[in-house]
Amino acid sequence: MTTPKLSSEFDLIARHFTRPAANAVLGVGDDAALIDVSNGMDLAVSTDTMVSGTHFFPDVDPENLGHKALAVNLSDMAAMGAMPHWAMLALTLPSVDHDWLAAFAKGFFDLAEEFDVSLVGGDTTRGPLALTVTIMGEVPAGAALKRTGAKVGNDIWVSGRIGDAALSVAHRRGKLKLDDADLQETIMRLYEPTPRVQLGQALRGMATSAIDISDGLLSDLGHVCRLSKVGAKVDLSAIPLSPIGAKYVGTPEGLNAVVAGGDDYELCFTANPNSRDSIEDLTNMLGVQITRIGQIHRGKGVSLMGTDGKPVPVDGGGFDHFSAA
Amino acid sequence: MTTPKLSSEFDLIARHFTRPAANAVLGVGDDAALIDVSNGMDLAVSTDTMVSGTHFFPDVDPENLGHKALAVNLSDMAAMGAMPHWAMLALTLPSVDHDWLAAFAKGFFDLAEEFDVSLVGGDTTRGPLALTVTIMGEVPAGAALKRTGAKVGNDIWVSGRIGDAALSVAHRRGKLKLDDADLQETIMRLYEPTPRVQLGQALRGMATSAIDISDGLLSDLGHVCRLSKVGAKVDLSAIPLSPIGAKYVGTPEGLNAVVAGGDDYELCFTANPNSRDSIEDLTNMLGVQITRIGQIHRGKGVSLMGTDGKPVPVDGGGFDHFSAA
Repeated sequence: MTTPKLSSEFDLIARHFTRPAANAVLGVGDDAALIDVSNGMDLAVSTDTMVSGTHFFPDVDPENLGHKALAVNLSDMAAMGAMPHWAMLALTLPSVDHDWLAAFAKGFFDLAEEFDVSLVGGDTTRGPLALTVTIMGEVPAGAALKRTGAKVGNDIWVSGRIGDAALSVAHRRGKLKLDDADLQETIMRLYEPTPRVQLGQALRGMATSAIDISDGLLSDLGHVCRLSKVGAKVDLSAIPLSPIGAKYVGTPEGLNAVVAGGDDYELCFTANPNSRDSIEDLTNMLGVQITRIGQIHRGKGVSLMGTDGKPVPVDGGGFDHFSAA
Repeated sequence: MTTPKLSSEFDLIARHFTRPAANAVLGVGDDAALIDVSNGMDLAVSTDTMVSGTHFFPDVDPENLGHKALAVNLSDMAAMGAMPHWAMLALTLPSVDHDWLAAFAKGFFDLAEEFDVSLVGGDTTRGPLALTVTIMGEVPAGAALKRTGAKVGNDIWVSGRIGDAALSVAHRRGKLKLDDADLQETIMRLYEPTPRVQLGQALRGMATSAIDISDGLLSDLGHVCRLSKVGAKVDLSAIPLSPIGAKYVGTPEGLNAVVAGGDDYELCFTANPNSRDSIEDLTNMLGVQITRIGQIHRGKGVSLMGTDGKPVPVDGGGFDHFSAA
């Protein structure tokens, strides 16, 4: 319609979002960006939207939000075994607040620089606060990690520790009560997840499937099972927890956060048991905890197993939510 | 947070948005899509967000919206002289309405098929109605049409007819009154713009700069002038109008719609005068009206010239809005 853009869009982009795009043919400022994808490489591309009130609390620190918006997309590149290079940012704002934008841009670009990612384009519009990042990267043709490759007998692995991000959300929603120190630490995991980009690339040729944990461990592993036409058993006692996670996993809300909470952006992947030593070596090489948590079986759906060898029921969303359709 | 996605996201995507992506290595359903960009080609990539109440009226016909969401992105490819191939759709919905989604998908895919574009990925989330499309295409390396290439002495050209889309918006906002037949016709131009994809490709090697008219003729041409470090004079009487546009251009609101309204998604481009015959030939070859409307000069900013040879003041946004910063 007649005023589709923020009236100061050009100033806004020039002031906050125009940085040299060293690795692009043409960056921000034209009708499209231009990118030269290397010979022998496939372009990997993924997009994620974050909406205020759905994906983040409206009072989020803008620097944290800038970090997270890029981090969740970097995590998609990690889950494909791809090298992230370029990003597009579509930002919808209720009004122009330059302090907010400067902080958001700092969070975004600090992480972008860490991973050599250039912002090559985007869009700014007026409306309820939301943002969509499209990330692009390269992966050697034929070498990407897909959700479809899990095989019966494969081990199931996860990186890092699971559940902290969801514990902070449960606290904010009044479902459990964390003390101040625990809240600070888990909130950092919620807003500043560490995308496992190096790990994803190291797993090419080793992992048979991979996914990043955004919706929840059982749910995301369920996607892999559905697409690979297999089932999975996860040992609850093997899931790597932080000291905070360990305090709460015995409660229904704590268990739910750990197995169904999501937002950790750790990798969950499958591999042949003969890769165990190579995978464990990665822990030292990359400085990231990698833990074997279960096995792929015939059948369908994901079962969470207790130490007594019996399935553990999970609250919230219901166990059916995690079963294959 | 714990429920970042629509709970039925997988059903929803499977039901409405999963079609074979013949031209992609990997389409919808994994952490990222995989694309093989041809040797010698640059990837052109652009993203546009449309927000309910800002870019379209909340009562928009969903099939029209699906068409328009892709059309405005195809138009960006046209303005680069690129061949569109792949799209990502990030859709934010207040609730799941399958009739609405089916109609939206029909509008989107009908246009996608017309241009051989595959939907290769995306995201669905809960929130205020909005959508972000990221379009990707190919352009021979070094041949893209940029905003930076306009030269003093170049002609300024536009495709199609200018102003109809904005007239329908002005009517909806009560700023002027169209009769029913005129309203129907101009609303079609608002919701079903024709992206000038073939024209954009035909202009490679001929146009010195190009942009699509989304914000308004003078404003968008102003971007070209600013980036090319030149000025422009546009002859008001040369701007191609529909019979409806011709009826209203004599009123302040009508003039504003024509020169500052936007939403036509026609191409505005510059070319050396020795290309005039070749450009006029394109009208017959491609069946699209192409009209010379002015010339590039030294200086900066865009002037709208009347038949008396004097600048014409423009209401709404103000003339300064179109001047180079």
